[in-house]
Amino acid sequence: MKKYAQLYKTELLTEVIPFWEKYSRDEEFGGYFTCLTPEGKVYDTDKFMWLQARQVWMFSKLYNTLEAKQEWREMAKTGLDFLEKHGRDEKGNWYFSLDRKGDPLVQPYNIFSDCFAAMAFGEYYKLDGNGKYAQIATDTLENILSRQHNPKGIYNKKYPGTRELQDFALPMILCNLSLEMEHILGNTKVDQLTDSIVDLILNQFYDAHSGLVYENIAKDGTLVDSFEGRLINPGHAIEAMWFIMNLGIRKNDNTLVAKAEHIMYQQLENGWDKEHGGIFYFLDAKGHPPEKLEWDQKLWWVHLETLVALAKTYAHNQSHQAQKWFVKVHEYAWNHFRDNEHGGEWYGYLNRAGRPFLHLKGGKWKGCFHVPRALLEIAKTLEYIP
Amino acid sequence: MKKYAQLYKTELLTEVIPFWEKYSRDEEFGGYFTCLTPEGKVYDTDKFMWLQARQVWMFSKLYNTLEAKQEWREMAKTGLDFLEKHGRDEKGNWYFSLDRKGDPLVQPYNIFSDCFAAMAFGEYYKLDGNGKYAQIATDTLENILSRQHNPKGIYNKKYPGTRELQDFALPMILCNLSLEMEHILGNTKVDQLTDSIVDLILNQFYDAHSGLVYENIAKDGTLVDSFEGRLINPGHAIEAMWFIMNLGIRKNDNTLVAKAEHIMYQQLENGWDKEHGGIFYFLDAKGHPPEKLEWDQKLWWVHLETLVALAKTYAHNQSHQAQKWFVKVHEYAWNHFRDNEHGGEWYGYLNRAGRPFLHLKGGKWKGCFHVPRALLEIAKTLEYIP
Repeated sequence: MKKYAQLYKTELLTEVIPFWEKYSRDEEFGGYFTCLTPEGKVYDTDKFMWLQARQVWMFSKLYNTLEAKQEWREMAKTGLDFLEKHGRDEKGNWYFSLDRKGDPLVQPYNIFSDCFAAMAFGEYYKLDGNGKYAQIATDTLENILSRQHNPKGIYNKKYPGTRELQDFALPMILCNLSLEMEHILGNTKVDQLTDSIVDLILNQFYDAHSGLVYENIAKDGTLVDSFEGRLINPGHAIEAMWFIMNLGIRKNDNTLVAKAEHIMYQQLENGWDKEHGGIFYFLDAKGHPPEKLEWDQKLWWVHLETLVALAKTYAHNQSHQAQKWFVKVHEYAWNHFRDNEHGGEWYGYLNRAGRPFLHLKGGKWKGCFHVPRALLEIAKTLEYIP
Repeated sequence: MKKYAQLYKTELLTEVIPFWEKYSRDEEFGGYFTCLTPEGKVYDTDKFMWLQARQVWMFSKLYNTLEAKQEWREMAKTGLDFLEKHGRDEKGNWYFSLDRKGDPLVQPYNIFSDCFAAMAFGEYYKLDGNGKYAQIATDTLENILSRQHNPKGIYNKKYPGTRELQDFALPMILCNLSLEMEHILGNTKVDQLTDSIVDLILNQFYDAHSGLVYENIAKDGTLVDSFEGRLINPGHAIEAMWFIMNLGIRKNDNTLVAKAEHIMYQQLENGWDKEHGGIFYFLDAKGHPPEKLEWDQKLWWVHLETLVALAKTYAHNQSHQAQKWFVKVHEYAWNHFRDNEHGGEWYGYLNRAGRPFLHLKGGKWKGCFHVPRALLEIAKTLEYIP
């Protein structure tokens, strides 16, 4: 397994990061272009806050963990400045998207813009030390926490009272965000934030009876027989499990790590497409037709996050099961998402049979994040296995 | 071409309508189940207002135009009563969805719920004559017209001023809705409503230079180079063209009919998948990767609405071109959407290669509407060709 560390690191440093360095920087207005063809051509210039913030985080992380390269720092800074100048409304909420120049296009209805902004400013603060960046990160986190029980705010279209649901995505992200901000928050605060969330995920969103992690559950933790209540997103749940493994490792809590591993395998086995290979995007817990038309597509991030979870599992227990699954998902991912013709960043969207159906490397929802983060995480994880 | 009339009518009366009669009625709470497997099993009981209203309209229409069958009237009435009792908020806006019992689940953020409700009450009023149904239809239409410049109201997430767009869907629906309500509105009001909309569609949403109908244009009618601004939905545009053909026929305006036919062919030729057959769901006007992950799927309503447009074109001019295209789309639709195993309602969602990827006949967005409406329209249209 150790031999994969070098492969992943080389792919990160000679293919994926150079692609974003070469094509994504907006020299005129700052920030990044994320809508890029495999040839590196910009096909849309709007700026989506998730992706701007994630790219700031990514280049800061490379600087902080791999090598203090001036180009990486400058790359992070161009996005950071753009975000700081244009990204927030007067209440400090982060817009969903801006036009190329930085004028707001879509209101702050999406709390994940705030989550990734907090991650970006927190990580950049590590390399700069200017207190205003820590302040933006903590203010944003406070704002997220105050909005967490109604994250969409005035844009929430649910009628109150009939069927109140809790959504998996926010607690899941908060696990990771808390750990990412530990240098600012301190470990007591991280414990305080994550203990209850881990409990919520492992004892409520995860249903031991079916072995599934649900995307939406009732406020009282029960399962709901509706499209949303039956929705399963295997990649999402698997990604959450490696966040929880990190929390378990941080606390030396082997039981927690083992539980996350067990749940991860259940989602992977349920999500694996036995006919064509790869992991489905969405499933219905009862086997009914999913609501989502894209349910049988194979998405890059699902597979890359699964590889991270499996690498972490292998590093933890060196089991044959982890190795076998890692190799299987690795083969699928490298044979289907990697672009052997153009190199650079990987493809993102495959049909069920495994063929790309969007000729792009980045878009509205895909930027410089899941591929490089996973390559970095896996390289770091497998480098130090016993 | 005349021989198709009988085929379409037989399919309507012996397969499609019996499917909905047999499986969709909620005997306990009123209204309809729309989430049905090919075997007729109910897999979800929520009630989506578009589909409830469309089914009321469909059964009323059958009663009013084919045969005054008591069962059809009763079928329409069960949905009508459910809608009347549970469908609106205190301002008369129509919710997006209710649970099985009729408690609201999703707020009235979607103006198309109102459009289909107005159609339903207007059509039912034809068979009943109770003034309260005409009143609900006209109140709802007034409400739609007052909301038309900001249909999402408080749920509109666009930041004002940066990039104001007009959406094709509402003017398009209003063309059809006005005609459907002519018995209530009178012909002067229909002229008044539709003349400016037809001008807007033919001279602004349709761009003669590219030959494309755009889903979103700037307030001043110019094209916008963004994901939304480049979005093309061929089936949507083709459906609108048969609404406009109807308006042209109503006014004996052959130039208008011919213009709609010309635009229809342009959308069809642009939208046809030359590799696998069928019509794409979405395209990007500049050939960039579309934002929508479902862009290359083949949807039932796209093909059925195209068949209606082609039947109307053929009835109008008996051209070889209309016949050739009708036969081509007919072959695709009957070979791919029709269910030769179970019969009944047709499949709705095919992948690019033409295989169903959702084992359903109805769901959250597919009910008793496009298949039966198209079968009825085509049968009626081709029956009377010279």
